[in-house]
Amino acid sequence: MRVSQTSLKVGELATGQDLTIPIFSLKAENGSAPNVYIQANVHGAEVQGNAVIYQLMQLLESYTLRGDITLVPLANPLGINQKSGEFTLGRFDPITGVNWNREYLDHKLDIAAWYSENQSLSNDEIIHAFRGNLLESCQARLNSEWGVTTGHQQAVLLQSMAHKADIVLDLHTGPKSCKHLYCPEYDAKAAAFFSIPYTLMIPNDFGGAMDESVFCPWWQLIEFMGTKGREMEIPVSAFTLELGSQENINLDDALIDAKGILAYLSHRGVITEKVEPAMMARHACYLRDYKKYHSPLGGIVEYQAEVGKPLKAGEPLANILRLDLYGSDKVLTPLKLEQDCVPILHFASASVYQGTELYKVMTNLFEI
Amino acid sequence: MRVSQTSLKVGELATGQDLTIPIFSLKAENGSAPNVYIQANVHGAEVQGNAVIYQLMQLLESYTLRGDITLVPLANPLGINQKSGEFTLGRFDPITGVNWNREYLDHKLDIAAWYSENQSLSNDEIIHAFRGNLLESCQARLNSEWGVTTGHQQAVLLQSMAHKADIVLDLHTGPKSCKHLYCPEYDAKAAAFFSIPYTLMIPNDFGGAMDESVFCPWWQLIEFMGTKGREMEIPVSAFTLELGSQENINLDDALIDAKGILAYLSHRGVITEKVEPAMMARHACYLRDYKKYHSPLGGIVEYQAEVGKPLKAGEPLANILRLDLYGSDKVLTPLKLEQDCVPILHFASASVYQGTELYKVMTNLFEI
Amino acid sequence: MRVSQTSLKVGELATGQDLTIPIFSLKAENGSAPNVYIQANVHGAEVQGNAVIYQLMQLLESYTLRGDITLVPLANPLGINQKSGEFTLGRFDPITGVNWNREYLDHKLDIAAWYSENQSLSNDEIIHAFRGNLLESCQARLNSEWGVTTGHQQAVLLQSMAHKADIVLDLHTGPKSCKHLYCPEYDAKAAAFFSIPYTLMIPNDFGGAMDESVFCPWWQLIEFMGTKGREMEIPVSAFTLELGSQENINLDDALIDAKGILAYLSHRGVITEKVEPAMMARHACYLRDYKKYHSPLGGIVEYQAEVGKPLKAGEPLANILRLDLYGSDKVLTPLKLEQDCVPILHFASASVYQGTELYKVMTNLFEI
Amino acid sequence: MRVSQTSLKVGELATGQDLTIPIFSLKAENGSAPNVYIQANVHGAEVQGNAVIYQLMQLLESYTLRGDITLVPLANPLGINQKSGEFTLGRFDPITGVNWNREYLDHKLDIAAWYSENQSLSNDEIIHAFRGNLLESCQARLNSEWGVTTGHQQAVLLQSMAHKADIVLDLHTGPKSCKHLYCPEYDAKAAAFFSIPYTLMIPNDFGGAMDESVFCPWWQLIEFMGTKGREMEIPVSAFTLELGSQENINLDDALIDAKGILAYLSHRGVITEKVEPAMMARHACYLRDYKKYHSPLGGIVEYQAEVGKPLKAGEPLANILRLDLYGSDKVLTPLKLEQDCVPILHFASASVYQGTELYKVMTNLFEI
Repeated sequence: MRVSQTSLKVGELATGQDLTIPIFSLKAENGSAPNVYIQANVHGAEVQGNAVIYQLMQLLESYTLRGDITLVPLANPLGINQKSGEFTLGRFDPITGVNWNREYLDHKLDIAAWYSENQSLSNDEIIHAFRGNLLESCQARLNSEWGVTTGHQQAVLLQSMAHKADIVLDLHTGPKSCKHLYCPEYDAKAAAFFSIPYTLMIPNDFGGAMDESVFCPWWQLIEFMGTKGREMEIPVSAFTLELGSQENINLDDALIDAKGILAYLSHRGVITEKVEPAMMARHACYLRDYKKYHSPLGGIVEYQAEVGKPLKAGEPLANILRLDLYGSDKVLTPLKLEQDCVPILHFASASVYQGTELYKVMTNLFEI
Repeated sequence: MRVSQTSLKVGELATGQDLTIPIFSLKAENGSAPNVYIQANVHGAEVQGNAVIYQLMQLLESYTLRGDITLVPLANPLGINQKSGEFTLGRFDPITGVNWNREYLDHKLDIAAWYSENQSLSNDEIIHAFRGNLLESCQARLNSEWGVTTGHQQAVLLQSMAHKADIVLDLHTGPKSCKHLYCPEYDAKAAAFFSIPYTLMIPNDFGGAMDESVFCPWWQLIEFMGTKGREMEIPVSAFTLELGSQENINLDDALIDAKGILAYLSHRGVITEKVEPAMMARHACYLRDYKKYHSPLGGIVEYQAEVGKPLKAGEPLANILRLDLYGSDKVLTPLKLEQDCVPILHFASASVYQGTELYKVMTNLFEI
Repeated sequence: MRVSQTSLKVGELATGQDLTIPIFSLKAENGSAPNVYIQANVHGAEVQGNAVIYQLMQLLESYTLRGDITLVPLANPLGINQKSGEFTLGRFDPITGVNWNREYLDHKLDIAAWYSENQSLSNDEIIHAFRGNLLESCQARLNSEWGVTTGHQQAVLLQSMAHKADIVLDLHTGPKSCKHLYCPEYDAKAAAFFSIPYTLMIPNDFGGAMDESVFCPWWQLIEFMGTKGREMEIPVSAFTLELGSQENINLDDALIDAKGILAYLSHRGVITEKVEPAMMARHACYLRDYKKYHSPLGGIVEYQAEVGKPLKAGEPLANILRLDLYGSDKVLTPLKLEQDCVPILHFASASVYQGTELYKVMTNLFEI
Repeated sequence: MRVSQTSLKVGELATGQDLTIPIFSLKAENGSAPNVYIQANVHGAEVQGNAVIYQLMQLLESYTLRGDITLVPLANPLGINQKSGEFTLGRFDPITGVNWNREYLDHKLDIAAWYSENQSLSNDEIIHAFRGNLLESCQARLNSEWGVTTGHQQAVLLQSMAHKADIVLDLHTGPKSCKHLYCPEYDAKAAAFFSIPYTLMIPNDFGGAMDESVFCPWWQLIEFMGTKGREMEIPVSAFTLELGSQENINLDDALIDAKGILAYLSHRGVITEKVEPAMMARHACYLRDYKKYHSPLGGIVEYQAEVGKPLKAGEPLANILRLDLYGSDKVLTPLKLEQDCVPILHFASASVYQGTELYKVMTNLFEI
């Protein structure tokens, strides 16, 4: 086993320079296990995934591979290199405002028609044919007569690589955040392997993200087949791992998450050796119970509730300082929530408009 | 008749200052005609609508009003005041990237259920009840337990005013653009009154814009009633007027468009006096024939095709200069389209990435 | 004693709204002590000074005032409200790029001529006359026939208030920073009163900052008078307090710094009561020994050296991760410095261009 | 004669990619004439200079070269590729706010000391030695122990190339601007060769721009030598050409300016063939008579005065629309100037804060 490096051109800058992404490939010694695709840093400020890929590549040197692994760090060169002030303005296309993680292709397949044409195929043949269909659909989009946008081109090129894999991991971070995992409901058991304490169980709705772009079409197909009396497991797994806060890398912490990924890959047989998941409490909630709390007023914020730490109803969440109102009881507004929750992330800045998304919290958690 | 002024609070800044929008009201002397709502400058750089409202208010001093008119210029204080470099970065929320004109509420009403409950009502009662329903739905959204985003709050407050009117005009501009109109297909005849040469006929799809947020629910309701055998005209009219280029005001040109609006209001009986529409050629195409052409390469652009002027297939559209390739035949790439069109707008900057939306063009035009 | 509030208009936005700053005044019961001017948040993201002013105003309720105190939080409404992505882009004017703290007026007085005209005055008369001169010079600048820039207008309005005081404190923060103080060399002893462990001793060079704009003209005058054989103490004190990191407020920590300020004001007799400075080690270096270390390469940064903690030559400063170079020894570049230092602040983002100012460090420190 | 191409690395991005600038060289067939350095697009949105270099390179194929010519288009890759919204945010470093054209090295030479050491040299030797001194000073700056900033590194690398030439042209544009030239007073006659109607005669003050960085040290040296009784012509010429408006290229117009440059090069003997300057009126004023007019209020602007067209005192300059003040006489404020002038450029956006630099105008013009 050894890492080979290539490069993917995803665009051109105004000066003519190519936008390129480094691609690292590890080939299976014996290819019976699922293939894996891991990308990082699609949001420009969310750099920790690169460190995780770095640690993972180093770890993998000592393991026996049964499936191919493709690793794509620094997956958004335009976003990563885009500063506005000291920070990386890498969450959306600076021209259009479109979130880089909402640019993936919605195949909008006619599943009924496709299955009707292909129902005589075996399960393996179904998988092969449907995957080909997804890849062709990506290719057709890229070849569109009128061209495609900068962000869509990059996203669909990444998506094409992901469609070729059986396991897809998209490494992100929150703004100021504890670790959490987006996991499709059908794959809930996978959440027990990563070194991640909180999991969001997500339904089959396409919102534009990489993980959804991978699993939604398969989930739809398998569900449709189920209505026709043909049961089959969804043959792909796709997750978004939120590995802490943006604008930060930490190699020691990256090693912990690399080992968590290794534990999952071991469970899936991608490596021969047994790697045990970290012993830790893991909790989850359904996406519908993941709540965004918006600031009820503008002002300067003192964040009080720690991310990743359970917060009882009525306990202090944050203070809003409004010095223009000194002398009134509105100079300091303590904010509280009316139900128990775990704050998962909060806004990155200490000053907010009315309506700024202040905290995202999990409610109705359950152990997994 | 006289103009009265109030102010709408739509948010709070980090310093605590209120975000407010001026509201001008003209009351009908005799209220039998439709009520009118006109807003401008929801995209921060698209300022010409303010000049049109200015001219319109001055013109209206001399006419007899039969319907109430509400005029809302400067409708996005955060966007209008947001500079990045010399230009106004007013197209999307600077924090989230969300387009300010995609923030309106999608009511997602259960039309069948609503109609089933209200089918015994007369047409006028239906209109009254359904309008109340839309307003309540806006109000419920604004009162959401977890709060709403900055942009959504502003948009739904504007939308609530618009839902109270029968005629809604949202004044925008393109980047570098000729005048054009977004007109719902059911209201095609209205396009002959404005001083606008090009019209896009749009279907009943909600994409988040003001005009759609107003007419989509009504269109759905009336279509549904049609399937039940009850014919009724869609009782609201809503249009987006694109009045030239952003980052520009011109009072003379604003007068022309104010008169076009007056001609439409005259046609609708909102003013007693007869105002004839401008004599001019007017063409339209369906939204599906409105094409975005993306730059096939990065570089410096010489825009050659003029907006508003028909362009034959194969005629020069633009040149892309790539000085890094001097000495090769790629130093200057002439771009052409393969079909006849009218370029309606082009990108605002002379340098582009690969994939930048270079031109938007109408194809398959027809006279109206 | 009680706090009275007024408001200062410093500009107008494109929508017409005034830019205003809240001003809080506390009047001396007996005015023999120096007057004080304290401002905060001239850089939009540096919000902690507001919290310090909040705590200080609350503390002052319990003390006896002998000098007037003017407190100006939220001193840059345009900068504070300017977001770009999640962060506050408040360090420079978004249109011109000019640092908000480099906009103060350089009086460029002809000190020799002024003193020659006023040398017959007593020391107190000198102070009165020279102060009047500075205020007139500000006023003349604001009344310039061709107008003044947005940033200059705001700065000179603030500066005019500061010139009326004897003690001026400008509350800032660094990006990711420990607390440190900018102190003019002539006022070195003052550094022992604030709750701040590190002090930069600065010379008499005007670089555009508030503190310099206040003390430089006086320092020049007194030095010139010295060359004429007339010794006099510099009658103003002006400091910049850097109170930790930007994008953060913490009320407990603000209380510590409010008490440090109180200790200094007590020492200067502004309050009657004795407030002792915090017992803590305090070190300083000269500004020429304050070094900016620029990243020798582009990449993702793991900051290793903690701010405020002495670092020996050769100890780890930071790692630069360059995943595009995986497989070479350049994938991870450890950065070190060749001399002992105390890192005072580091860059706010984890990704850098070549040449980004990575760390600022004090060298050649001495105890004070 | 033929164009050869190389590339200059000026930095590294966060993703690790090099920032590079293309360099085109034309070698003299016979090297007795001055050497020439021409750069363009140091401000990212000012792209027309690239088109001029393109046309000039094509024209030069037909002429006989007596001096070497170095052409550097796209001279600021970071600035050119930096979008914020649709426009190029290329005027200042997005991290620091520093204007890219204020980053050149101020050599701060001790001219008296240098000349005292070198006074025995002949004129030619003086030139050779002083140029060497400038180049060493640039090199020493680049090799600074603590590193240099991103912008400074790029600027000093460009400056090093410029110091090697005798004639330096820096191609810029204004925001919305007519063509104008920055010409040092000692070189006033040169202004008659370019195809540029308006010239600013500038004194010997270093403000950070490329042209100044080139001619200031020489001007200081020659002036100092004059005080020692040794007369010598300033051996370098350096100009900034402002070739119209930003965010625009026009190849036809570029040809006109390429020919103007050719006329100057012909006059200087760089090409053997005679090229006559364009017949046109040319006017100039001193830099002290170049006035910036700042908006006295915030609002929406209708620019009325055309750039490049004389404006009498009292004639309309611009209107400020303040719709929030409808009903008062402040709804529309006509702006006028109190003296005759030629507006040279105006602000790029139609909405302004109070204090925005609205127009720059020449006063006290004279024919040249």
